[in-house]
Amino acid sequence: MNQASATPTVSIENIGTFPDQRVRLRGWLYQKRSSGKLHFLQLRDGTGIIQCVAGHGDVSDALFEELAALGQESSLEVHGIVRADPRARSGFELHLSDARILQNAEDYPITPKEHGVAFLLDHRHLWLRSRRPYAILRIRAEVERTCHAFLESRGFLRLDAPVLTPAACEGTTTLFETEYFGGRAYLTQSGQLYSEAGCQAFGRVYCFGPTFRAEKSKTRRHLTEFWMVEPEAAFLDLDGNIELAEALICAIVEQVLEHRRDELEILERDPAPLEGVRAPFPRISYGQALALLEREGQPVKPGDDLGGDEETVLAGLFDRPVVVHGYPSRLKPFYMKRDPENPSLALNMDILAPEGYGEIVGGSVREENLDALDAQMAEQGIDPGPLEWYRDLRRFGAVPHAGFGLGLERTVTWISGVHHLREAIPFPRLMGRLYP
Amino acid sequence: MNQASATPTVSIENIGTFPDQRVRLRGWLYQKRSSGKLHFLQLRDGTGIIQCVAGHGDVSDALFEELAALGQESSLEVHGIVRADPRARSGFELHLSDARILQNAEDYPITPKEHGVAFLLDHRHLWLRSRRPYAILRIRAEVERTCHAFLESRGFLRLDAPVLTPAACEGTTTLFETEYFGGRAYLTQSGQLYSEAGCQAFGRVYCFGPTFRAEKSKTRRHLTEFWMVEPEAAFLDLDGNIELAEALICAIVEQVLEHRRDELEILERDPAPLEGVRAPFPRISYGQALALLEREGQPVKPGDDLGGDEETVLAGLFDRPVVVHGYPSRLKPFYMKRDPENPSLALNMDILAPEGYGEIVGGSVREENLDALDAQMAEQGIDPGPLEWYRDLRRFGAVPHAGFGLGLERTVTWISGVHHLREAIPFPRLMGRLYP
Repeated sequence: MNQASATPTVSIENIGTFPDQRVRLRGWLYQKRSSGKLHFLQLRDGTGIIQCVAGHGDVSDALFEELAALGQESSLEVHGIVRADPRARSGFELHLSDARILQNAEDYPITPKEHGVAFLLDHRHLWLRSRRPYAILRIRAEVERTCHAFLESRGFLRLDAPVLTPAACEGTTTLFETEYFGGRAYLTQSGQLYSEAGCQAFGRVYCFGPTFRAEKSKTRRHLTEFWMVEPEAAFLDLDGNIELAEALICAIVEQVLEHRRDELEILERDPAPLEGVRAPFPRISYGQALALLEREGQPVKPGDDLGGDEETVLAGLFDRPVVVHGYPSRLKPFYMKRDPENPSLALNMDILAPEGYGEIVGGSVREENLDALDAQMAEQGIDPGPLEWYRDLRRFGAVPHAGFGLGLERTVTWISGVHHLREAIPFPRLMGRLYP
Repeated sequence: MNQASATPTVSIENIGTFPDQRVRLRGWLYQKRSSGKLHFLQLRDGTGIIQCVAGHGDVSDALFEELAALGQESSLEVHGIVRADPRARSGFELHLSDARILQNAEDYPITPKEHGVAFLLDHRHLWLRSRRPYAILRIRAEVERTCHAFLESRGFLRLDAPVLTPAACEGTTTLFETEYFGGRAYLTQSGQLYSEAGCQAFGRVYCFGPTFRAEKSKTRRHLTEFWMVEPEAAFLDLDGNIELAEALICAIVEQVLEHRRDELEILERDPAPLEGVRAPFPRISYGQALALLEREGQPVKPGDDLGGDEETVLAGLFDRPVVVHGYPSRLKPFYMKRDPENPSLALNMDILAPEGYGEIVGGSVREENLDALDAQMAEQGIDPGPLEWYRDLRRFGAVPHAGFGLGLERTVTWISGVHHLREAIPFPRLMGRLYP
């Protein structure tokens, strides 16, 4: 094959800029069908899929036979002419003149037939190549990109929180621990406490990284390793915190609708509900939430937390994400500030995604008064020792501040219309699932 | 204070857009000096520092006394008129008319005097507020932003690698391990193997997250938790891999020079050596490196690895980062492809930063042939069990591919002119250092 030097190597997503030209493509055989005289090869290269047509007279007899025997996910390099084809999804197909097989893959385990989820998860390293994971993970990357861009545009500095920590942030029962040079370290459950230190140094900061919960839970809404973006701002109050989260969610939805339409289509995700997501979101208090749940026949005892079922019922009453604020403070972590007008309530807010996807944001004003913080730590039995540094933040330059965490995978499942969190992360970690 | 509604709340970095106007600023007292009739308050708000001048007649007597007693890092809100002042770093100062003390901080532990490093690390949550960490961590955020923007512009999809893994990637002696629902999990040492699966699905991917090495090492070049950006591309060869890394490094330097000049000045980092960083970088083979080291009186036995001292000598011979390629393959991990023209050498490359900052990039072509991979795993005593999925990548659609890891903290120390990695990450984790 001596055409390489003269022929441009292109990617499928850009192939439309080479109409009627000879190009070189490299990728993998996604699907294949043959009539006697024609092979139709669906070639994917990571940027898209294109149909390549090889006629019996167009390529050598030997190559025609080789192509006939080619297994799914074989790797190959093809040469051919780009032809417009209105029937093709990409608008183009490639008429082959030559090809070079790099590896003929035999017995690729993921065939077009249906597979069970356990099988697919065991083969996640290969499953990534299928159209559905491809679409979801491209949406995920877009959501991540937007989180960074949005927060930077609002003056938030990226400040990475540590994974290895000396203390628990969200309760001690769900901690992964590791030996640390003779002592013990815990995998972070949230970067928030560190972001609080950061906002007193930089005004507005955010962290964005993996967090961990060793929850013995097998629901579709739990992963043991998941990503959160956590902005924290000095001089922010509850209203400002809600507005920030609303604006972030709106930016995410807008960017996905703008840049990931094809992926939503692959997932058969109706974009209409996403197009209606605009600020302001409806806001209801915990008390109002209880009244609505009562009315809907899903009563909750006053003072009790809302579970996944209740969240689904509540979210179903609105056409966009709904903000629920002012939960009983005893349900909430020690660092949340109490409502000065009703100290039994926290100055917190959750945002529930529509269509049953549950809580995607949880945030609050933080208690900045040391005495009040100490009292709440004592009430909840939190050891102040490893958090001495956190108490320092109240001793030196305490200011009102607030922030929230947005769960990346929960947001991605909602936007993608995907049922289970395990599909929203490249390599899901669940109870009983650490491989690959 | 009833001016709040009429007075705009501004940030110090934008104060130049409000000349001769009354504004409100909120922040912390960085430094203070007083003459009998004037207080000069250095106020910081996370975006900069500005001098606020309070004259005895300009504010109430009571407030004037309060300001006199105000401790370092007290939080306050001030009102005043923005006045141009060519002597000020920001070009402006604020003439106070009113102020409200939020919290008078007493005995802030980090004073303008010199402190030992251990003391400062114990108070990292507060030390972040000082000018030097402020400048370094703003440079870090700029480096991170550029990594994302550059790789996206080159068609790389962000694909997050897991932290919890079933197997070691870079050797088993430096692993953090944790119980995982009755089994064992290890904290990732590199996302590369997962990025390799990703590049066969998406063509070009990168991961960017924390990685872990339980190294019992106290040098300035080691952290137990550090961040790496790791691009991986199908159909990339060694030359392409080097060019990609060069272009990324050049983009990082360029963006820092464009957006973080003030921070370099705070650090007294001479920008001149950075301004000379342009591709192509000098490239030398391992063999050439040995000859140069011999000439410089720092001989290395052929076949031995280059240590930190040798890297410093080599890097000192060039005015920009230097690429060293083709190390003995037995020094390198099992996944590196060997040079077909000399199988005792790996198709690898390291990039050493100038000025003694050591290796900032390590990368290679990966072995895509299963038999060769298996042989290298056997040679190095790697258990193939937990890596069965990785072997699958060679069974199904193997293609030539390559990638590298760029160490974030090492890159930040070099660009910032900072001696020790511990200053290049918000909350450093070292042997014997897990707090705060």
